Amino acid sequence: MSLIVCKFGGTSVASPERIQRVAKRLIARKQEGHQVVAVVSAMGKTTDELLGLASALNSNPPAREMDRLLSTGEQVSMTLLAMAIEARGYKAMSFTGRQAGIETDGTHAKAKIVKVHNERIMEALDAGIIPVVAGFQGINAEGDITTLGRGGSDTTAVAVAWGIGADVCEIYSDVDGVYSADPRVAPRARKLKEVSYDDMLELSGAGAGVLQMRAVEFARKWNVVIHSRSAFSDAEGTYIKEVAAMEEAVITGIAHDTSEVKVTIRGVPDTTGVAAKLFGSLAANMVNTDMIIQNISDAGITDISFTCPSSDLARARETVERVLPEINAREYVVDEDIAKVSLVGTGMKSSPGVAARAFEVLGENNINILAISTSPIRLSVVVDAAQAAEAVRCLHTAFGLDSDSVFKETQLSAEEIAAKMAKGR
Amino acid sequence: MSLIVCKFGGTSVASPERIQRVAKRLIARKQEGHQVVAVVSAMGKTTDELLGLASALNSNPPAREMDRLLSTGEQVSMTLLAMAIEARGYKAMSFTGRQAGIETDGTHAKAKIVKVHNERIMEALDAGIIPVVAGFQGINAEGDITTLGRGGSDTTAVAVAWGIGADVCEIYSDVDGVYSADPRVAPRARKLKEVSYDDMLELSGAGAGVLQMRAVEFARKWNVVIHSRSAFSDAEGTYIKEVAAMEEAVITGIAHDTSEVKVTIRGVPDTTGVAAKLFGSLAANMVNTDMIIQNISDAGITDISFTCPSSDLARARETVERVLPEINAREYVVDEDIAKVSLVGTGMKSSPGVAARAFEVLGENNINILAISTSPIRLSVVVDAAQAAEAVRCLHTAFGLDSDSVFKETQLSAEEIAAKMAKGR
Repeated sequence: MSLIVCKFGGTSVASPERIQRVAKRLIARKQEGHQVVAVVSAMGKTTDELLGLASALNSNPPAREMDRLLSTGEQVSMTLLAMAIEARGYKAMSFTGRQAGIETDGTHAKAKIVKVHNERIMEALDAGIIPVVAGFQGINAEGDITTLGRGGSDTTAVAVAWGIGADVCEIYSDVDGVYSADPRVAPRARKLKEVSYDDMLELSGAGAGVLQMRAVEFARKWNVVIHSRSAFSDAEGTYIKEVAAMEEAVITGIAHDTSEVKVTIRGVPDTTGVAAKLFGSLAANMVNTDMIIQNISDAGITDISFTCPSSDLARARETVERVLPEINAREYVVDEDIAKVSLVGTGMKSSPGVAARAFEVLGENNINILAISTSPIRLSVVVDAAQAAEAVRCLHTAFGLDSDSVFKETQLSAEEIAAKMAKGR
Repeated sequence: MSLIVCKFGGTSVASPERIQRVAKRLIARKQEGHQVVAVVSAMGKTTDELLGLASALNSNPPAREMDRLLSTGEQVSMTLLAMAIEARGYKAMSFTGRQAGIETDGTHAKAKIVKVHNERIMEALDAGIIPVVAGFQGINAEGDITTLGRGGSDTTAVAVAWGIGADVCEIYSDVDGVYSADPRVAPRARKLKEVSYDDMLELSGAGAGVLQMRAVEFARKWNVVIHSRSAFSDAEGTYIKEVAAMEEAVITGIAHDTSEVKVTIRGVPDTTGVAAKLFGSLAANMVNTDMIIQNISDAGITDISFTCPSSDLARARETVERVLPEINAREYVVDEDIAKVSLVGTGMKSSPGVAARAFEVLGENNINILAISTSPIRLSVVVDAAQAAEAVRCLHTAFGLDSDSVFKETQLSAEEIAAKMAKGR
């Protein structure tokens, strides 16, 4: 018998029918002999609806009220799930963040968990009850509700798993695990049996949207085993855990991200302080720049490019337009049709030549590299969005990641996928 | 400067626009120099929607989960109202039942308030903040949320007013006070300046839907002055308070209620135990019988009628059908087209002849009385629904309640009103 935490996201609890399915799933785990704790997000689009109501009343709503408002979403789903479990003859009990003992710092809207008091949940488990915990929320020292920020329910699940000493934290979603690449793009992608925390962090950061980075960070810090699996099948998913170093693959997987845009500022005088001026202004205006590329200077004039999330583009344009005359630059252009493709693998550290091989493979396939960035265990290149799928596939093959079987759900041609990714924003 | 509690119902906070209006109203009260505490219900139909979700998952949902679920409705409206006040440059802070110190007994779904801890609200008031309190909810000794039952927000408002020693508890709604009769039915109805607690309780019980009886009971017990007034105008409404006995009117007002039905059991043997059998079974099946009428026995056979809320009719039919053979009765008939018209007045106790005069007036107007019931300060008659409006009007005139002005919003003819009331269910 093991003690497991099962987390279900907003899509899994979006309707009474889906809540019924989650209840069945939890009961099945219990019938297998496990002690089970559920963690849930708010139903479907609830959080967005509440945000809409708030913004209709106050363009800058007080954070305390906002947290209190948003926290009601998970309180609805947790009570409904508890009711659904009870209707099937099993004991269940809902717990708000407060009742589940999730103590946070005072920062509203993006609170950090400082302590998990496990007493009430342990008592419920001992009484044969399935505790259903509201994700995304905690309580600060003043007794006010705080929220953990978007995607905070994954973090709640990992924190609860740690707090009660669970054997595993199962995170259910509409994908059945972590793949060596997105199977919709690379049909020969393999589902990974296990991934190290470090690799998972890099994959998440590079666009593999399976798990919230923050939850993975928490899990790494406190050594909580995560099992990322499908809400719709019983198949084993992917375990995220400490992987013994001797088993490290050079490349664990390839992630891609089409959510960024590239901004190029042309005709910039190559003088001291220009970059500082530009990127300082961007940071001050809340633009998260990712990669930065500066061309070789020609007669004291150069071009500077950077990438940022497309959600930051409006602020980026505003900043650049303001800074342009100050730095005496000529003009700027925006390229929205780009994609970032990243190779991730802890073994990369000890295997020189990964970058050279990657550039070679992309060159052989006539894929133009627009920008490059690296970390010790990641290599990212920016390419035309139309070439992204091809880039993922040829790198996947070249680094020996291809599976023998072809992912069956991929019905699109390479061209269709490329077209889709180019417009995917 | 006075300390006032302002309660707004679900209709008043049903949309962001209406919440804005409530915020303006509260700020206006504060600008007049008062200290203000707001109490709110859930937005519009929220509570019904949540009930619908719950019943889709569990036909008999656990009471603890249900209370937790329903309490989110007021938590949404309170935070939105606080945000709207802040957006206008005034300080506001929302309080759940727990934070407002509303301590209840352990009965979920219809908890009784046992204590009001006023510290946090007083602190907020001292800091110049407008506290916005979630109606309808409290917290029990186990730290779980409880709800006070339908219409519980009025009770919260009165309890908070008592807890903080407010000068008045203003209850805003879509009617502008308590009238001597429903002005839509009796165009010469007068708005009452003040009504005693006892009269208000009888009026509420007899169908005047302005205030929740429970809130009035609480106010009477703890001597809280209620001001029932319009959410849409600044006009003074009606004060419900202890009225000096020497000012007592014989008749304060006339209420009517078309929500009841009459069930008549025919051919009942007039033997001992028949009534006990019938009404015992009805009570056991949760049928709230109101009036009971037994005809004079003819050759040992009689008819028995009773009235009950139409919402109880299904259970009433079921009970009567089961009991009918046991008491050897012949048949039963249901009359849904009835109305109860009630004369209420504390002064009635000391003024004999009210009943005689009422029967005389109704007779002169050819209105047939189907049943009669009385309390020391109330006389109720059941009449055909089609004659109810006429009954209200002629009694209103006969007992000297008519105002000199005619209620302007009444556009319907007497016939139209009668038709409307007959189908009003």
